[in-house]
Amino acid sequence: MKTRKTNSRNLSALFAATVLLAALAVLPVLADEGMWTFDNPPLKLLKEKYGFTPSQEWLDHVRLASVRFNDGGSGSWVSPTGLVLTNHHVALGQLQKVSTKEKDYVANGFFARSAAEELKCPDLELNVLIAMENVTARVGASVKPAMNEKDALKARKAEMAKIEKEALTGADSHVEVVSLYNGAEYWLYRYKKYTDVRLVAAPEQQAAFFGGDPDNFTYPRYDLDFAIFRVYENDKPVESKHYLKWNAKGAADGELIFISGHPGSTERQSTMAQLEVQRDVLFPTVIKQLKRRLAVLKRYAALGPEQARQANNQIFGIENSLKAFGGEYEGLLDKSLMEKKQKEEKDFRGKVAANAAWQKEYGDAWATIERAERQRVTLFKQSRFRVVRGLRLPTLALQIVQYVAEVKKPDGERLDGFHDSELESLKFRLFSPAPVYAQLEEALIAEHLQESLEELGSNDPFVQAALGGRKPADVARELVSGTKLADPAVRKALVEGGEAAVAASTDPFIVLARKIDPVARQTRKSLEDTVQSVETPASEKVGRANFAVYGKDHYPDATFTLRLSYGTVKGYPMNGTIAPPITTFYGLYDRATSFGMKPPFNLMPRFLERKDKLDLSTPLNTVSTGDIIGGNSGSPVINRNAELVGLIFDGNIESLVGNFVYDDAKNRAVAVHSAAIIEALRKLYDAGALADELEGKSGNRP
Amino acid sequence: MKTRKTNSRNLSALFAATVLLAALAVLPVLADEGMWTFDNPPLKLLKEKYGFTPSQEWLDHVRLASVRFNDGGSGSWVSPTGLVLTNHHVALGQLQKVSTKEKDYVANGFFARSAAEELKCPDLELNVLIAMENVTARVGASVKPAMNEKDALKARKAEMAKIEKEALTGADSHVEVVSLYNGAEYWLYRYKKYTDVRLVAAPEQQAAFFGGDPDNFTYPRYDLDFAIFRVYENDKPVESKHYLKWNAKGAADGELIFISGHPGSTERQSTMAQLEVQRDVLFPTVIKQLKRRLAVLKRYAALGPEQARQANNQIFGIENSLKAFGGEYEGLLDKSLMEKKQKEEKDFRGKVAANAAWQKEYGDAWATIERAERQRVTLFKQSRFRVVRGLRLPTLALQIVQYVAEVKKPDGERLDGFHDSELESLKFRLFSPAPVYAQLEEALIAEHLQESLEELGSNDPFVQAALGGRKPADVARELVSGTKLADPAVRKALVEGGEAAVAASTDPFIVLARKIDPVARQTRKSLEDTVQSVETPASEKVGRANFAVYGKDHYPDATFTLRLSYGTVKGYPMNGTIAPPITTFYGLYDRATSFGMKPPFNLMPRFLERKDKLDLSTPLNTVSTGDIIGGNSGSPVINRNAELVGLIFDGNIESLVGNFVYDDAKNRAVAVHSAAIIEALRKLYDAGALADELEGKSGNRP
Repeated sequence: MKTRKTNSRNLSALFAATVLLAALAVLPVLADEGMWTFDNPPLKLLKEKYGFTPSQEWLDHVRLASVRFNDGGSGSWVSPTGLVLTNHHVALGQLQKVSTKEKDYVANGFFARSAAEELKCPDLELNVLIAMENVTARVGASVKPAMNEKDALKARKAEMAKIEKEALTGADSHVEVVSLYNGAEYWLYRYKKYTDVRLVAAPEQQAAFFGGDPDNFTYPRYDLDFAIFRVYENDKPVESKHYLKWNAKGAADGELIFISGHPGSTERQSTMAQLEVQRDVLFPTVIKQLKRRLAVLKRYAALGPEQARQANNQIFGIENSLKAFGGEYEGLLDKSLMEKKQKEEKDFRGKVAANAAWQKEYGDAWATIERAERQRVTLFKQSRFRVVRGLRLPTLALQIVQYVAEVKKPDGERLDGFHDSELESLKFRLFSPAPVYAQLEEALIAEHLQESLEELGSNDPFVQAALGGRKPADVARELVSGTKLADPAVRKALVEGGEAAVAASTDPFIVLARKIDPVARQTRKSLEDTVQSVETPASEKVGRANFAVYGKDHYPDATFTLRLSYGTVKGYPMNGTIAPPITTFYGLYDRATSFGMKPPFNLMPRFLERKDKLDLSTPLNTVSTGDIIGGNSGSPVINRNAELVGLIFDGNIESLVGNFVYDDAKNRAVAVHSAAIIEALRKLYDAGALADELEGKSGNRP
Repeated sequence: MKTRKTNSRNLSALFAATVLLAALAVLPVLADEGMWTFDNPPLKLLKEKYGFTPSQEWLDHVRLASVRFNDGGSGSWVSPTGLVLTNHHVALGQLQKVSTKEKDYVANGFFARSAAEELKCPDLELNVLIAMENVTARVGASVKPAMNEKDALKARKAEMAKIEKEALTGADSHVEVVSLYNGAEYWLYRYKKYTDVRLVAAPEQQAAFFGGDPDNFTYPRYDLDFAIFRVYENDKPVESKHYLKWNAKGAADGELIFISGHPGSTERQSTMAQLEVQRDVLFPTVIKQLKRRLAVLKRYAALGPEQARQANNQIFGIENSLKAFGGEYEGLLDKSLMEKKQKEEKDFRGKVAANAAWQKEYGDAWATIERAERQRVTLFKQSRFRVVRGLRLPTLALQIVQYVAEVKKPDGERLDGFHDSELESLKFRLFSPAPVYAQLEEALIAEHLQESLEELGSNDPFVQAALGGRKPADVARELVSGTKLADPAVRKALVEGGEAAVAASTDPFIVLARKIDPVARQTRKSLEDTVQSVETPASEKVGRANFAVYGKDHYPDATFTLRLSYGTVKGYPMNGTIAPPITTFYGLYDRATSFGMKPPFNLMPRFLERKDKLDLSTPLNTVSTGDIIGGNSGSPVINRNAELVGLIFDGNIESLVGNFVYDDAKNRAVAVHSAAIIEALRKLYDAGALADELEGKSGNRP
């Protein structure tokens, strides 16, 4: 979806406060609801409602054909020759990184005419989920009855790090211990990792994101939001055995479809106490912060076309987040929604209370969470503003400073993010050759420091460390003008030089990072000691209570891990009338013409020049009841035969409250229709060979 | 607009309870708000906001180019050769009446290829407002201080009838004394009347009403909702000097436009007491009644294609009303809307109370209205269910029975509807040759009687008179099978035969009407004596208080009299994004294709056969901020030069609360674009000669 681009990492940054440890409330499973793990697909529901039972082979095939884009999206293998399909907006970061002032592939699109023209991405890591193992018992056993809360949290984390480290099998291995059902279950997920990913095809951003921010998260829609990569190993295209066959007919109105992808996070099972803190504290703050940053970016973009190009990706990301958060926040402010959640929780707790054993085991969990949430609020300002969030150079510097210290410790004692199982991916990002836009960084750093100053006051240790009484703009200027960190070789030398090199460095960002590191650690520790250590076991209790009361016929909240959703292609009541199950290219020309071709409703020249070549009745976008959220962007929509019939890129405006509740009367997943991509490749982009490759009409192209 | 088709008559039937006597509350005039009388156009506002001051000549020209369709719509002269433009759905009743099983002009459209082919309408009366005179003082003087409430109401009505009678100048004269600003002003409106109106052109209903009930009252929209008549006098086309020149370029985004038409009714200035009775009593009842009747019509339509044809017009009308009322009712149920109205009333009353003279003069009005409304509620069931509403034969019969009695009385003492000034129009309808569909009537009468029985009980005098203990279905069958009233000659003979003929008639409908007439009169009298006589002077007080407090820079509630609205062509926030200022033919093909051409989204064959002839980028529909409501259907949209740039046919879904409040952020009037009609005439309907006539490109066609 046109995502709140989430990944577990960004997410934990943005939502550090409340997302990680939400508790399972009661959600009776409704029609077409759910983001199911592949070990627990809704077989009963599917059989009853659709008369379809996917075989284990079907499930394995779909899982292995699904790809995670680690910077926040989903994709799928779509040929035996290593082609991976995702959204243009998932590819946008990489597109920007391989673009220059002279060659702007974001604005102008990119189509490789041969394997030689395919463009290697600087820091794109893809993951494929190859195995899942339930490690709940092992994680649970690490916590001994005698431990206090702090030690228990520490023990649990150490055990998870140990499991991950043991599971690593080599350079192409990525592993994660995943907490599901709010910690009622822990699973070891093993991924195959790919880091040689090359850009094959991407339309112009204007074609992919026609309608821009206004149309984002809405439907009817007319976007060619796709991009195609090819994955290499040993400089050869991967032979991707598990790929989805392309079905350009798409799915019919009412047809059963599945969506396999990586929803970033949901909070459907949070307790009322957690939701209320989100509503009253987190959302207002985050929205305010994002607006502030957006203003900086827009001022910068207004300086000229090159500045606009540099800021484009971040502007897209923030506008996208603002629209998503705005919709979610409205949901939290909606009294009827909150009353519904309240009633669910009351019913759930009532059932627990009615059983003495359950009450003894789980009954105190909600009050404990509420206490932890109150504590979270007291720490909120520092946890929110004593950080360098979303800034490239300060983040790199802090990671380097922490890296050299952490790797010397036993794995289980390190900060999260620095465990052995995480180091390869971390270094991949740390040493990325992607360009740094110094002036843009400076503007953002100045604003960020100014914001921390305003929110925390000049006596705060973080502000003291960062500013030392000086003006944010002056500090930012000196930092950016004096640093060499934009050069990945410099970063590499520091990491390889270890603590001594870092301690000796006079690079202003490293100097700054050394000063703020203790504050950052202290802030993180406070949160762990007084909130997470309390809330984690309480949340697990709520999760286990849910199993006790309702069984396991439900799905866990989203965690940016692979999930299977299902539903049907279906219009919905909208704007006083009905939204159709599909749109067509006619609609693209209608909307462009009806706004007089003014941006963001302008058509790229080729759409005007080649209009008569197109069959305008070709389906362009389509909606289904499949349950998705940010992170699902780029997910394949598949039919019963596991053929690709669409490409998820967005949710409708009614889907934004999907973070908290799902309603299949109105919540819709928006996809690019499989026919549209073929039509565009053949008629608009002279990419018939690629279309043939996708449709299996030719041999391997490379 | 795709209208609650209102006219003062239908309206008073549907809304007899509360519409007629609403009181002026406070409405500060907002941007682009208002349905202004031509004697009091918003010159100051127009000058300040748009730098435009229409001259008296401009105003007179626009007024005289405007046409009222007396069965509930608006129109305009669009050629010097008597052509009048309105909506297809305003023409629908006449289209159905000139159609037969063999020649279905509703389904297939109608285009006269010569004057000889133009089809005379059976009972269509058009009015043009030729003069307005303020008669407030004269009406006021008829009420003497010594009179009690009942006598005062009687005196006022008698004086109004007298004024009307004196003003009549001949057979082509129609006059009305109109109550504005809730009776704070009375105006004598003189109309020129036309009754020889012939159908020239109408597209297929599916082209006019593409999207059907789902798309009704919504936008973006793709409807060719137009019909063209030619008006004759002495069997020759009228030389229409004041006509609107056609401007096929339309109005640009942001351009100032005006709408001249006949909004049916609004209740923006009702008191809270009146609104609450609407919310709690009237709307739930009316919606329930309409759903009941719709079910009968749909069952009847399902019997076969001819039955479907016969019921089509009524089904359209009821679905239209249900959607409109549904939106209005939601407005009344919307707490924030009601709080806004409450605050306005509180402020207004506070200002009155702060001035001792005002308080003495007007201060008791609100409490008086509240008292009258309580009384209205006690009479509600009988006033609502002791009537024959919307049934052709029972209504004709009751009108005949009352006619012969009333015309013998002095004009001032007659029932409303039977004053000398009203008789010609009444006879035009009474003797209409329009077909009666007997089986359809029977089904509707049976349901209506059943409903009255259920609501009033078997002992109610109306139910006794109508059923006498028998089953509604049996009574209905006997009535319809035994009557000759479907023949207009029979009706004429009865009217001309006077009381003796009516008393002697054994026609079952006349027999029935004689029995229910006393009950109907008693019910009407109770309402007059205990509600209207109390509320009328109180409402006048509120109206005068409004003048005292706020001056006359505002507009009166709609009364199905000519009004001038203004605004700009402008999109609006919708569905999470922006609705465009226009749509195009591309969008028609998109929506049809996206629903797989399934009704109501199917295209007529000519749209498929001739697609390549059309310029699909031609604007099709357009929206503006002009303030309209049901009754405005068919109103011309004109530019500063008084050229026709569009044809109002609907409001968006957000406009439905416009009955109570206007918000130009979202309320939009939906029009057919002037270019669309020309494009369709030339390319789809082979009606180039008519297009030439409209564009002034040829001489007179007839």
